[in-house]
Amino acid sequence: MTTPQKAVVLVSGGLDSATVLAIARERGFECYALSMDYGQRHRIELQRAVMVAKSNGAQDHKVVRIDIGEFGGSALTDDDIDVPIGGTEDIPVTYVPARNTVFLSVALGWAEVLGARSIFIGANAVDYSGYPDCRPDFISAFQTLANVATKAGVEGDVIKVEAPLLELTKAEIIRRGMSLGVDYSQTLSCYDPEGNGAICGVCDSCRIRAEGFAAAGYEDPAL
Amino acid sequence: MTTPQKAVVLVSGGLDSATVLAIARERGFECYALSMDYGQRHRIELQRAVMVAKSNGAQDHKVVRIDIGEFGGSALTDDDIDVPIGGTEDIPVTYVPARNTVFLSVALGWAEVLGARSIFIGANAVDYSGYPDCRPDFISAFQTLANVATKAGVEGDVIKVEAPLLELTKAEIIRRGMSLGVDYSQTLSCYDPEGNGAICGVCDSCRIRAEGFAAAGYEDPAL
Repeated sequence: MTTPQKAVVLVSGGLDSATVLAIARERGFECYALSMDYGQRHRIELQRAVMVAKSNGAQDHKVVRIDIGEFGGSALTDDDIDVPIGGTEDIPVTYVPARNTVFLSVALGWAEVLGARSIFIGANAVDYSGYPDCRPDFISAFQTLANVATKAGVEGDVIKVEAPLLELTKAEIIRRGMSLGVDYSQTLSCYDPEGNGAICGVCDSCRIRAEGFAAAGYEDPAL
Repeated sequence: MTTPQKAVVLVSGGLDSATVLAIARERGFECYALSMDYGQRHRIELQRAVMVAKSNGAQDHKVVRIDIGEFGGSALTDDDIDVPIGGTEDIPVTYVPARNTVFLSVALGWAEVLGARSIFIGANAVDYSGYPDCRPDFISAFQTLANVATKAGVEGDVIKVEAPLLELTKAEIIRRGMSLGVDYSQTLSCYDPEGNGAICGVCDSCRIRAEGFAAAGYEDPAL
C-alpha cells in the first residue's frame, strides 16, 4: 500500500466545498480541511464546516482565525451593510475583499508545512455571485504565484491549486456530490441565516442553491 | 490642494518596513500601516511596529490577527525549532511558509475597502535570508494575481504592489532611511530577541543588519 498524498481542502460549511472535499477523498487524498474564522457575521457556518469535515473523512480540520472582517466593506462581515434580496448586478456587496486570495494563501502555508502538494477550493464561475476571485483567471494567477512563493516551488516542486467545480453548473455540482454520498443537509449556503441555521430563502446564494437542486432533480435535504 | 492617494504599508517593526513607510510618506501617500499578529514567538516586534507606524506618520495602523503560526514549521513561530546562528544555506528554518503571500493578500483586502491603489512591502532580494517570497518574481506574480483577484482589477483599475527596496543593498536601505529621518532605534531585526528587545547578535538577521550599518558608515542606534 502506498502512502496517500496529502491535500489541503478549503471547507466553508457550504455546498460547494463539501462536494470538493468528497471529490478529493474519492481521488485518494488524505484531506486536511481548513476553515477560516474571518469575522463572518454568521458563526453557524463554522459549525457546519466542522460537521462537513468530519462526515466527509477529513484527516484533520483547522479553523484559523484571520481578522479580515475588521476591514468591513462586505455585507458578510459588516452588520451595517444589508444582504441584498434576490439577484444582484455586477459585483455584489456580499463580496468580501480578497477573501479567496487570503484563503488560498493560508492554505498554501499549511500545505508547505504538511508537505501537501495539492490545495482544493470550491470556486465556481458558472452559477455564482460574480465575485472576481471565483474565476478561472484568478485560479491560474494564484497557481503562478504559488510556484514562485514557496519553498516547494523553489525546489522545483508544484503545489497544485485544484478547483474541480470551476466550470460546473450548480446542478452538476449537486449531482456529483449526491453520487459521492455528500450529506447536503449539513451544508448551509444562505448569506443571512438565523442563528439556528434557518435560511432566508431570498438572498442570491439561496436562490442559486434552490435553482440548482431543482435543475438537478433533487429535493434540498436542508429544507 | 489635492486629496492624497491612500496606500497600505506593511509594517513589521523591522528596519526595512520602517524605511518603506518613510518612502511612501515622502512620495505623498496617506499611509495605512498594517501589521500581522501571526503567532510570532517574539511579541515585541508588534510593539515596535506600533512605534514605527506612529513616528513615521501613518494615518492609521491595524494589527490583524492571523493564526498561521499554528501550522508550525518555522523557527519564528515554533518554540521547538531553534533560530540558527550565523549564515545559513538554502532556505533557512526561519522561513514562515507563505508569509508574504498571506500578508500581501490581507493588505489587498484592506486596500480594496479603503480605496487605496498602492500596497508597499519591504521585500528585499539582495541582503536577505533567501526566502522565496522576497524575490522580484514573487512580487510580479502577486501583481498579476491582484489584477484579477479584486473588484478594482475587474473595473480596470490597478492596485499596485510597490517594493521599493527590492534591489537595494542593506547599506543603501539604511542610507535612504537616514536621509528620510527614520529613527532606527525603534526598529528590531533580530530573529530571537529577549523579551526586553535585547538582540542576540548572532542570527542571520542580526548579521545582515550589522554589516549593513557598517557598510553604510553609521552606528546602529538600536545598539
